[in-house]
Amino acid sequence: MRPRVLALSLALCATAAQADEGMWMPSQLPDIARQLRAAGFKGDPAGLAELTRAPMNAVVKVGGATGSFVSGDGLVLTNHHVAFGVIQYNAKPERDLIRDGYVAADRAAELPANPDFRVLVTTGFDKVTDRILKDARGKRGRAYFDAVDGATKTLVAECEREAGYRCSVANMYYGSDFYLIRQLELRDIRLVYAPPDSIGNYGGEIDNFVWPRHSGDFTLLRAYVGKDGKPADYSPDNVPYQPPGHLQIAVEPVREGDYAMLAGYPGTTYRHRMASEFVQQIQWQLPSRVALYGDMIKTIDAAAAGSPEAQVSYAAQVKGFKNTLKRAQGELDGLRRSDAARVRGEDEKAMLAWLDKQPDARAIRADIDAAQKVLDAGAATRERDQLLTAIRTQPQLLNAALTVQRLAHERGKPDAQRETGYQQRDETLIVGRLKQVQRRYAPQVEKALLLELLLQYKALPKSQRVDEYERVFAGEDRAALQRTLDALYAGTGFGEEAVRLRAMQDDAAKLAGSGDSLLKAAAALLPAVLRMDEEGKAREGELLRLRPAYMRALIAYRKSQGRAVYPDANSTLRVSFGAVSSMDPRDGVRYRPLTTVQGIVEKHTGADPFDAPQALRDAIAKGDFGSTADPELKTQPVDFLTNLDTTGGNSGSPVLDANGRLIGLNFDSNWEAVSASWMFDPRYKRAIHVDMRYLRWLLAKVYPAPHLLKEMQLPAE
Amino acid sequence: MRPRVLALSLALCATAAQADEGMWMPSQLPDIARQLRAAGFKGDPAGLAELTRAPMNAVVKVGGATGSFVSGDGLVLTNHHVAFGVIQYNAKPERDLIRDGYVAADRAAELPANPDFRVLVTTGFDKVTDRILKDARGKRGRAYFDAVDGATKTLVAECEREAGYRCSVANMYYGSDFYLIRQLELRDIRLVYAPPDSIGNYGGEIDNFVWPRHSGDFTLLRAYVGKDGKPADYSPDNVPYQPPGHLQIAVEPVREGDYAMLAGYPGTTYRHRMASEFVQQIQWQLPSRVALYGDMIKTIDAAAAGSPEAQVSYAAQVKGFKNTLKRAQGELDGLRRSDAARVRGEDEKAMLAWLDKQPDARAIRADIDAAQKVLDAGAATRERDQLLTAIRTQPQLLNAALTVQRLAHERGKPDAQRETGYQQRDETLIVGRLKQVQRRYAPQVEKALLLELLLQYKALPKSQRVDEYERVFAGEDRAALQRTLDALYAGTGFGEEAVRLRAMQDDAAKLAGSGDSLLKAAAALLPAVLRMDEEGKAREGELLRLRPAYMRALIAYRKSQGRAVYPDANSTLRVSFGAVSSMDPRDGVRYRPLTTVQGIVEKHTGADPFDAPQALRDAIAKGDFGSTADPELKTQPVDFLTNLDTTGGNSGSPVLDANGRLIGLNFDSNWEAVSASWMFDPRYKRAIHVDMRYLRWLLAKVYPAPHLLKEMQLPAE
Repeated sequence: MRPRVLALSLALCATAAQADEGMWMPSQLPDIARQLRAAGFKGDPAGLAELTRAPMNAVVKVGGATGSFVSGDGLVLTNHHVAFGVIQYNAKPERDLIRDGYVAADRAAELPANPDFRVLVTTGFDKVTDRILKDARGKRGRAYFDAVDGATKTLVAECEREAGYRCSVANMYYGSDFYLIRQLELRDIRLVYAPPDSIGNYGGEIDNFVWPRHSGDFTLLRAYVGKDGKPADYSPDNVPYQPPGHLQIAVEPVREGDYAMLAGYPGTTYRHRMASEFVQQIQWQLPSRVALYGDMIKTIDAAAAGSPEAQVSYAAQVKGFKNTLKRAQGELDGLRRSDAARVRGEDEKAMLAWLDKQPDARAIRADIDAAQKVLDAGAATRERDQLLTAIRTQPQLLNAALTVQRLAHERGKPDAQRETGYQQRDETLIVGRLKQVQRRYAPQVEKALLLELLLQYKALPKSQRVDEYERVFAGEDRAALQRTLDALYAGTGFGEEAVRLRAMQDDAAKLAGSGDSLLKAAAALLPAVLRMDEEGKAREGELLRLRPAYMRALIAYRKSQGRAVYPDANSTLRVSFGAVSSMDPRDGVRYRPLTTVQGIVEKHTGADPFDAPQALRDAIAKGDFGSTADPELKTQPVDFLTNLDTTGGNSGSPVLDANGRLIGLNFDSNWEAVSASWMFDPRYKRAIHVDMRYLRWLLAKVYPAPHLLKEMQLPAE
Repeated sequence: MRPRVLALSLALCATAAQADEGMWMPSQLPDIARQLRAAGFKGDPAGLAELTRAPMNAVVKVGGATGSFVSGDGLVLTNHHVAFGVIQYNAKPERDLIRDGYVAADRAAELPANPDFRVLVTTGFDKVTDRILKDARGKRGRAYFDAVDGATKTLVAECEREAGYRCSVANMYYGSDFYLIRQLELRDIRLVYAPPDSIGNYGGEIDNFVWPRHSGDFTLLRAYVGKDGKPADYSPDNVPYQPPGHLQIAVEPVREGDYAMLAGYPGTTYRHRMASEFVQQIQWQLPSRVALYGDMIKTIDAAAAGSPEAQVSYAAQVKGFKNTLKRAQGELDGLRRSDAARVRGEDEKAMLAWLDKQPDARAIRADIDAAQKVLDAGAATRERDQLLTAIRTQPQLLNAALTVQRLAHERGKPDAQRETGYQQRDETLIVGRLKQVQRRYAPQVEKALLLELLLQYKALPKSQRVDEYERVFAGEDRAALQRTLDALYAGTGFGEEAVRLRAMQDDAAKLAGSGDSLLKAAAALLPAVLRMDEEGKAREGELLRLRPAYMRALIAYRKSQGRAVYPDANSTLRVSFGAVSSMDPRDGVRYRPLTTVQGIVEKHTGADPFDAPQALRDAIAKGDFGSTADPELKTQPVDFLTNLDTTGGNSGSPVLDANGRLIGLNFDSNWEAVSASWMFDPRYKRAIHVDMRYLRWLLAKVYPAPHLLKEMQLPAE
């Protein structure tokens, strides 16, 4: 008993020391080498900064998420949910890969992914701030925005001249720095190993965001290239890609307090937003989103109550609304629990007080104050803007008419200058959306939804009204608006798919002659939509110009405290470090950091999503865990918890131990951490990973793939 | 950090050693002295056996539960929910003691309890097996039962000749041993200190059976006696009772792994029932109870759907059904989780195999086999008996008519020979029940309920039908039975309170002349009810005669394993011992053994039952915890968890530390332990206690009562 407890004691001590936030650019890691070592990292921090050296050269972008090379022959490890499209693409009625999983017996049996599936290997990451900002300097607002946008497009086009590469420009510290990112684009990806959905997605929606968790959310893919070693479309003649480096899966156990680090492509965070933006998010944005989506759900439910067809038509939209509402509520609860507005406010106040004492404070302070004014101007019409956005995007038919009018408008420009989403390459997508309307629309529900939104709009102060909307949606009370909407929807043929698709082909002149009431309404609204778009871009440009002052102040202030600042997440490669960690979600309850196969049995009901496959249950009952069992728990571990800093996009991120060996595969966060996109609260922020010992056990004993274990240089059992 | 973790390590080690079941008679404790000492008890086990010595002489019976003396002046500590009637009795619109709590400023301000409230001090516990069984020996069935019953009544009457005492005979080991229990009956009890309901019952029904828990479920009462020191009815001249001993509340902290013991009056357990009874409970009784109560709830809900009045009338009955159903389901889940049927079955099989090898096995084995036959005979009609019991007890009006007829029948006998519940002293209660029908009845609902139950009865094999029921409830299908019930309820005046109460006064002859259809139906059913009662008592008598053989075998078998056997709980004084203990309710989750005031704040919503009083929230925010704070948690503890063996009736039991000092007040179990009445599973059985440091803090800082702290020799803060 004694040794176990002593191990635990070290674990507890370590946890307390290591809990820290940060989504660091690899290039920053040498600067925080001391912290890395203090947390337990045993490698060379400088080595982590090199994108072309292991381990960073093994971390790749897969879909909108992350993956990593785990063999010298291009084997890629990512989440089951990240590769789900690939599995689905290969599933057939007689070969249900979703239900049964898949083990390719050899390379010939590896199944090609959908042709648009990509694995991106980052090969370049260079600061290009001067080139991006050269033309922008001295400009303001929309002009500043356009200058940055233009320079970005030029750099990307230049970079992509070499075939097989995709390039992009990343904006760090809100416009302070820009980096040109160059990625090798692997286009022939194949499915190698997937567990059944009832393992990969065990617990489904019910367990989403939940700890304790028991999912085997992983899949193995393989990247192929042409015989010349260069990216190529699928061909049976292609050969496995030889990555410059790959990760070695660990065989050592994972214990509470162990050092852990994670690399991946987190999407978006708002940690360095200004204090007033925190207040707005907590006091207005999230509560008003909860209220608006709650109202829309209630309205649709009531309007569809009598009609099973209407209920089916709106099921997906309502489900989406419920998700949005749930997330907003979770984020709000979390930010309140962390007292985020006060914490961020006090921090900013201290920063500004410090700044005012610095020699070069005045110009910086002026920019910060100007940025605040831009934010205030946007906030003045925030309620109206949220409502008008809902009015033009949520009612399906009205949105279709607006899309058709906007497309005709954009077609009047050269393709390169068209608004994103309305370029030639987007037209197939638009056709799809216009077709889909058929399955997602019922006239009485759309009118009820529009009526509810318009009533809220009409309740705003008169000064906030928008002329075009006033003309199209005449009437101040329910009865008058109802008459307006009845007339609008009685005079349109847009309920017919053929009518919508035909209208999409028409040019602006022809559309102008149309007698369709909804098309006419959309034409009348379009100038307002374009004008508000323009205003938004001008604000965006101003903030791009002004925010760097705020970031400069923050970075200098943190430096005075001896601390580094990571840029907010923006889908570029980042590293976070911390420890395997328990969590106390509420008084009297502790979440333990490892789950075991016993939990699969406890949760099993036989019904989806708790329908563990017979083969898995038999193997658990047999208890033959071999080298993959946990030496302390004396059973097979499944998932584990760390305090690593993650957000959406980190799905599939490899979790490494102190020696850089792969111990886990990130796939989710706990519900209490939903608010971490704004504030990292070490008490509640945790990340959920598949324990690599579970993967090894499944490959060794449950759905055997001895050839893959061998390829990954892992023990056979 | 180090010392804390080392303390934790000792705690973990201790926990593993101490988890054990047992509701021991104090007289057994010297026999298990070695286990007590191994678990950490530092006192003299022999001292625990003496009912007239401390600490046992301080443990008292309060209502149907437990309490203990905590001062030399008769101060009694028990649960808020145990003393709730006393608080309610003293509550007035202008002095809402339930909402606000109560602190008696001095003895004159102590408020008299309802006159029927009692505190019982056990003063004698003597084995009387020979006297009880003398006349029974050689008899069987009903005669055996009557002989035991007669001897019991004689002994009790003899014992109660001394004024101020209440006596009873306790049956230990299922008829193996009988003990005469003599208890001093204190009748003048006063309310001294009660926290507000929102502290005493914080979390209400929602937190019932829940850990982590945050209730201050305690109340202080004081027992008074006449100036002569003898029990007396309330009088302002009475003086505080000087108990022979009292408990000292501890000032030391409580830590995981600490030794803990508890004394109290647990109600009923079934741990030593035969294996076939475990099988019946798990495979038939609990599932069929779940099904029956589920059906009754559905039937009542459907029948009352259109009528808000009917819904109100049946609200209490439906709530009771839901509680019964929930408990049955919880017990079933628990027994399945513990694999109780298999465990008990294998144990019994091993015991019988051992028994068959003993010299005196044959006679014992014959009795055991005979007992099994009696159980089998009862099981043959168990479904019918459950349905007929529901039919005569659940429909309010039919039950009223049956009660009236039974009362008239019993009145034909001398009072002492009347059936329990139908004696002269019970008539006031019967009047109350007959009056209550008015508020709990709607004809369409009662008919629907009866119809549902009768349809289930009619679905039984014909051989199980009962003539009297067949005649009264004619018809085989829904339509025919509906006609029968329509006629039955059309022809009765029993819906009128006056009619019911008048009928209750009538003798059997007068009732026989009544034309009321329901009274006539009840008269026709009565012979069947009496006959089945008689059969039940005969079976009970046989089991009373035969079960001791099973217990003798079990005790001898356990002795051969070096283990003692405690008798199943029967509302007599018992002691259990174990440790302060965490619990792992499911994979990946650990319940920590102590909760803190932070949990009160986390749960607070402002709405009942999570409506913590402002004074409490202010005191928590202030953080002024003084000597009552936990030195490791650095905050104020509230409740704690042990692995002590408890059941209903243990409410208010004092929890003592290794030195016999009072550390906690038992008030609930966790939901996972509902099945412990049949099987103690050390993985899931926990008991929930108020930490005495929470009581001390409330008395010191929140609702101050410095005079009571002084009386209990506790620090002022």
